[in-house]
Amino acid sequence: MAFTEFRPLAEKSLIEYIKATSVLSDKIGNNFGDLKIKEVGDGNLNFVYIVASPSGSFVIKQALPYIRWIGESWPMTKERAYFEALALREHGRLCPENVPEVYHFDRTMSVIAMRYLEPPHIILRKGLIAGIEYPLLAEHMSDYMAKTLYYTSLLYRTTTEHKRDVAEFCGNVELSRLTEQVVFSDPYKISQYNRWTSPYLDHDTEAVREDNILKLEVAELKSMFCERAQALVHGDLHTGSVMVTHDSTQVIDPEFAFYGPMGFDIGAFIGNLILAFYAQDGHADQMNDRIRYKEWILRTIRETWSLFYKKFTALWDEHKDGSGEAYIPEIYNNPELQLLVQRKYMQDLLHDTLGFGAAKMIRRIVGVAHVEDFESITDASKRAKCEQQALDLAKMLLKERKKFQSIDEVVLAIQQVQ
Amino acid sequence: MAFTEFRPLAEKSLIEYIKATSVLSDKIGNNFGDLKIKEVGDGNLNFVYIVASPSGSFVIKQALPYIRWIGESWPMTKERAYFEALALREHGRLCPENVPEVYHFDRTMSVIAMRYLEPPHIILRKGLIAGIEYPLLAEHMSDYMAKTLYYTSLLYRTTTEHKRDVAEFCGNVELSRLTEQVVFSDPYKISQYNRWTSPYLDHDTEAVREDNILKLEVAELKSMFCERAQALVHGDLHTGSVMVTHDSTQVIDPEFAFYGPMGFDIGAFIGNLILAFYAQDGHADQMNDRIRYKEWILRTIRETWSLFYKKFTALWDEHKDGSGEAYIPEIYNNPELQLLVQRKYMQDLLHDTLGFGAAKMIRRIVGVAHVEDFESITDASKRAKCEQQALDLAKMLLKERKKFQSIDEVVLAIQQVQ
Repeated sequence: MAFTEFRPLAEKSLIEYIKATSVLSDKIGNNFGDLKIKEVGDGNLNFVYIVASPSGSFVIKQALPYIRWIGESWPMTKERAYFEALALREHGRLCPENVPEVYHFDRTMSVIAMRYLEPPHIILRKGLIAGIEYPLLAEHMSDYMAKTLYYTSLLYRTTTEHKRDVAEFCGNVELSRLTEQVVFSDPYKISQYNRWTSPYLDHDTEAVREDNILKLEVAELKSMFCERAQALVHGDLHTGSVMVTHDSTQVIDPEFAFYGPMGFDIGAFIGNLILAFYAQDGHADQMNDRIRYKEWILRTIRETWSLFYKKFTALWDEHKDGSGEAYIPEIYNNPELQLLVQRKYMQDLLHDTLGFGAAKMIRRIVGVAHVEDFESITDASKRAKCEQQALDLAKMLLKERKKFQSIDEVVLAIQQVQ
Repeated sequence: MAFTEFRPLAEKSLIEYIKATSVLSDKIGNNFGDLKIKEVGDGNLNFVYIVASPSGSFVIKQALPYIRWIGESWPMTKERAYFEALALREHGRLCPENVPEVYHFDRTMSVIAMRYLEPPHIILRKGLIAGIEYPLLAEHMSDYMAKTLYYTSLLYRTTTEHKRDVAEFCGNVELSRLTEQVVFSDPYKISQYNRWTSPYLDHDTEAVREDNILKLEVAELKSMFCERAQALVHGDLHTGSVMVTHDSTQVIDPEFAFYGPMGFDIGAFIGNLILAFYAQDGHADQMNDRIRYKEWILRTIRETWSLFYKKFTALWDEHKDGSGEAYIPEIYNNPELQLLVQRKYMQDLLHDTLGFGAAKMIRRIVGVAHVEDFESITDASKRAKCEQQALDLAKMLLKERKKFQSIDEVVLAIQQVQ
């Protein structure tokens, strides 16, 4: 049976598919006798299978033509697999240490085969809930973000390369629209999909919908999200899109990838660390008050930005006489000016990061998709208290973002809203 | 002889071409006996022929695979004709009163046939040099800009429509790169193409190249030009791209069209009116001191922006419950908030307009392509004085643009730099 048109893979057809695809059967040493297949997808968007034999392993991810959320099924193009594969390969080329290798992509079947991230890799969010410290997390994530964002921006590339790739990723519009809806729209209006910890946050949710200044500022962020093609962003870089061990950090699931503002990625990651910070009080118990862990999260937030700043500007310095067309060396031709433009660029980027990070926090508290950090706090009043702190901080950050000069000020603000 | 591959049209082959193209031969009533053909192109970028018989007329514009500037020939894709035709048709659909009708487009031959703008239509720039008042100019140009910019933005359209068209116009990258070079780069560095009224402006030209703050601000504008797909802009909306009579205003030559910042168009037009203002002293003589004409130009600048503001926000109000995805009515759901978002949007747009307008002024004084407004002032010291005033105003506008609250403040600033 050939795979000349799309069909969802079940376990049996998956084996046939592997047999028909030499790169995959080679990967498992053609060892079909001892093959183990395990479905691990959460079933929201995709099928995900781990395929392993004693000779080798891989993961198969197949996009389905719908997504499921809170019981409802929304149609959603399976072409997203194409953009996910494209982004995995491009980001993987730029930062191979932190992106799983793609072995095979099949556009007809919307199938990506990639490296299986073996145990003890777990989803970062689960590690944060468990209170585990990852000493290399800031180092790795700053590396990943500096490289993927710098090298796909006009700081490094020509306009010709840039426009070609921007045009290509315009094709991923259905996923971009989904983000527009769930991040920038639904939380600020009455929507059947919104939910929150009721009755505790009833008033706060209403206040979000009635805050004119907040909605004014969200409009600016949304317009940047829709109009500004600054770099190839992952598009969904929360702590559930990162797998970690003590030594390894792997960024997965870039199906929302497109050319957008850099701050959308950095903000997603930092915003979700802040959510993890505020969830800790809900996870504290007599054995562990989580106080030191909260300090580690704040340190990680600070280091992620500081290291990102250092690495991003180092790449900029290294390639400043290259073919990037944003800052022509004959114009930006003295050290004072170079410092001036870098400081302004990074300051603007910090403000974007805070704005998008805050928007991502808000939508996880009053919008459709919540985070396990809070959801796993079973006591609703305790959960609501954590969420309320996070929401208060996020609203302030979103509205006041342009007043922040440094990440230290941000960390201070987080500490003050407790 | 068929026209199955590109060749430049000379008078003889043009007649063959018309005979082979029924929509064109019909247009002139198949009246080849009395046909008059006149080449009117300036030869810089294109062949332009006026074709007229007693039964009808049209203009033929053919893009050539190069452009000529200051004697040198640069290769330049003739595919620009495709984007010009696309923009003429789209803008023409949105504002038929101010865009010449396209009768025929041939991608292979890079040929556009369109309405012949019969005498007394002249290029607006020539009218401004001659000191002619056009009482409907602000009314018409504000109409054109409000309609073309509003209807191609996310204020009116869905993300799906927007991304599709953004991707298409990414193909016009060669022309966008040319703008990047001549507007945002060359004036700020030593370039063999730059020229200026020497020796009078030697110091001013050097000062532009050594002004760190100016170069910092130009970088922000360039990045907006390259990254921000706000609306389908004309891309070259100076006073040489407008043909006028007392009653008619027609916008031509959108071969630089792409999805970019709205302020780039509005700024180009207003910036070129400011250049015309400062050139007047060089055209004054004993018969006409041009003082009243300068007042008319200032009035036209003020009215262009004020009417644009009024019409653009009126379109926004009219369609606020439509399918535009930037400001969802369920979120922007009270009059106070609607006013707040419009004011912020228009304030930001004024700042972009001033920044881009200033950049367009600067490049016309110290860059490769100058304007006839100044070039026609034969006395070099007199010309230099006019240019210097324009340059001083432009530098100030570019650096201080975000401090301006209204067009009245801009007009006041123009009056003060004299």
